[in-house]
Amino acid sequence: MQLNKIYAPISQDLNAVDEGLKSVRVVDAPWMDELLAYALKGGGKRLRPALAILSAKFNDFNMSRLLPLTTSVELMHMATLVHDDTIDNSSMRWGRKTINKIWGMEKAILLGDYLFAKAGYLTASTENIRVIKLLSETLMIITNGELAQAASSFHLNQSREHYYFRISCKTAALFVMATESGAVLSSAPEKDIQVVRDYGYNLGIAFQIIDDILDYIGTEEEMGKPVGSDLSQGTLTLPGLMLMERYPADNPVKKLFENRQQTEYIGKTIEMVRNSDIIAKCFDVTELYRQKACTGLAALPPNEARESMLNLADFIVNRRR
Amino acid sequence: MQLNKIYAPISQDLNAVDEGLKSVRVVDAPWMDELLAYALKGGGKRLRPALAILSAKFNDFNMSRLLPLTTSVELMHMATLVHDDTIDNSSMRWGRKTINKIWGMEKAILLGDYLFAKAGYLTASTENIRVIKLLSETLMIITNGELAQAASSFHLNQSREHYYFRISCKTAALFVMATESGAVLSSAPEKDIQVVRDYGYNLGIAFQIIDDILDYIGTEEEMGKPVGSDLSQGTLTLPGLMLMERYPADNPVKKLFENRQQTEYIGKTIEMVRNSDIIAKCFDVTELYRQKACTGLAALPPNEARESMLNLADFIVNRRR
Repeated sequence: MQLNKIYAPISQDLNAVDEGLKSVRVVDAPWMDELLAYALKGGGKRLRPALAILSAKFNDFNMSRLLPLTTSVELMHMATLVHDDTIDNSSMRWGRKTINKIWGMEKAILLGDYLFAKAGYLTASTENIRVIKLLSETLMIITNGELAQAASSFHLNQSREHYYFRISCKTAALFVMATESGAVLSSAPEKDIQVVRDYGYNLGIAFQIIDDILDYIGTEEEMGKPVGSDLSQGTLTLPGLMLMERYPADNPVKKLFENRQQTEYIGKTIEMVRNSDIIAKCFDVTELYRQKACTGLAALPPNEARESMLNLADFIVNRRR
Repeated sequence: MQLNKIYAPISQDLNAVDEGLKSVRVVDAPWMDELLAYALKGGGKRLRPALAILSAKFNDFNMSRLLPLTTSVELMHMATLVHDDTIDNSSMRWGRKTINKIWGMEKAILLGDYLFAKAGYLTASTENIRVIKLLSETLMIITNGELAQAASSFHLNQSREHYYFRISCKTAALFVMATESGAVLSSAPEKDIQVVRDYGYNLGIAFQIIDDILDYIGTEEEMGKPVGSDLSQGTLTLPGLMLMERYPADNPVKKLFENRQQTEYIGKTIEMVRNSDIIAKCFDVTELYRQKACTGLAALPPNEARESMLNLADFIVNRRR
């Protein structure tokens, strides 16, 4: 199923999010105009706002109460990407040049900070303390995960456990923030909040594993950035970890990490992974997380939103299988 | 008067702030331990927490309610410095190496983000929406000012108005945040809140002008960073602006900004400023802001805190005259 079909029951609400994002661009500061316009015009599937909206559709749905939060989670996402690209010195994102590539590291850091602050302000305007605290906690978790990743880059002694910790921080946490906040702002009972939280968590893990798979099997065109980016940053993801588990004594990841100048081992790692069943095994893992995400939803009443959430999980996991 | 004497009526409260900052260091993440320990062990006069505490002493003072906020404003301050140093690629701060110098740009960006998030979380725990919003607004203002500064660096068409705008954003805003939040959390009436806000604003402007003066007349030892840092970043401050006003056709700032490789013009600018009455004129400006800050305080009841605020303004403006 295509994303616009999945989003059909919330298409009007998502239009409101787009308007909300456009209004973030209106500032009385000429030195910010083009930066904000560029940052907010980027691609993206509005996945996190959609998750917040869908999660709010089971109780007292009120889009005007929800709008600042949905805009905020998208800004948070954008801000972390702007800083990530700066940290990695990446040139491309979503098929176009990054902020740091065009305007330099200085402005990219500051723009990210501004977007964090704006996200904080919008969330504060929900006047819901739980949601407000959750936003800060989420940014703490994300940063913690990124720092863990930075600390372990080009290190060989990494485990799957460490990998799952990192992706739960850097990706699943914001999915949880979106779903939990949506439910909280719809005055959902605590058990419903837990259901959509778990859905967000499992979907987030599946989403990140797919992203990590695509770094091995995708094309630069479809990803909008070079293949093998993670390896070139010294970041180990599930396919690379599985390869190392199979050939602990001698493998191209080891060679690359021991001498990061030998970039030919990036291609060799990708080739070995592609020529094995590792990618299939990784997809099996994402399928398990998809199932976990969807099974939990049975506890919610059946409605269009639940249907969309089931289809969205399917879309995410099978977008490239 | 010495700072510890000025702080005497709030010394116990400031000890609580130090304990609050220490507790920020306790995280279950070995990759963050040394970063946080280093960042939080740095110097600093705890000026912003002190402003919050003093501003709360006129009404319903409650240190346990105030503590998260006071810790938060200090973390905000630290986070902006960590990002500033990264942006400027500075090597020294408070007489020791910067985070970016020791651990690199990546970790410095992430540590700053983490400190922003922690500041947000602590402020959220006050459960006061006005204070929570103010924190985000303040970070938006600071970032806006920093972006304005970045956009104007090495540009010659700058005015005093532009300078005051920048310093009101990058310094006075956080002073205002501290004083306003302190008053709000002590349930002060709106007119008292406005009094301490104005005090914070005027003191912040004076503080930054003094800082900018010290970049011309200080020594590397007393400042803990090289003299002329602002000029080398292409940042025009009040002394340089005054020099350009006096010699519009030909001056060393112009030569430096037109060819930033000619760093000998940094020294020439400093020399010309030192050999003129420009520094005295700048001190006159700070004295005006000190007076504005202190005059307003007459509207508050006389107590130890008001006395400290008057002395603090004097300390800040006359610390190097």
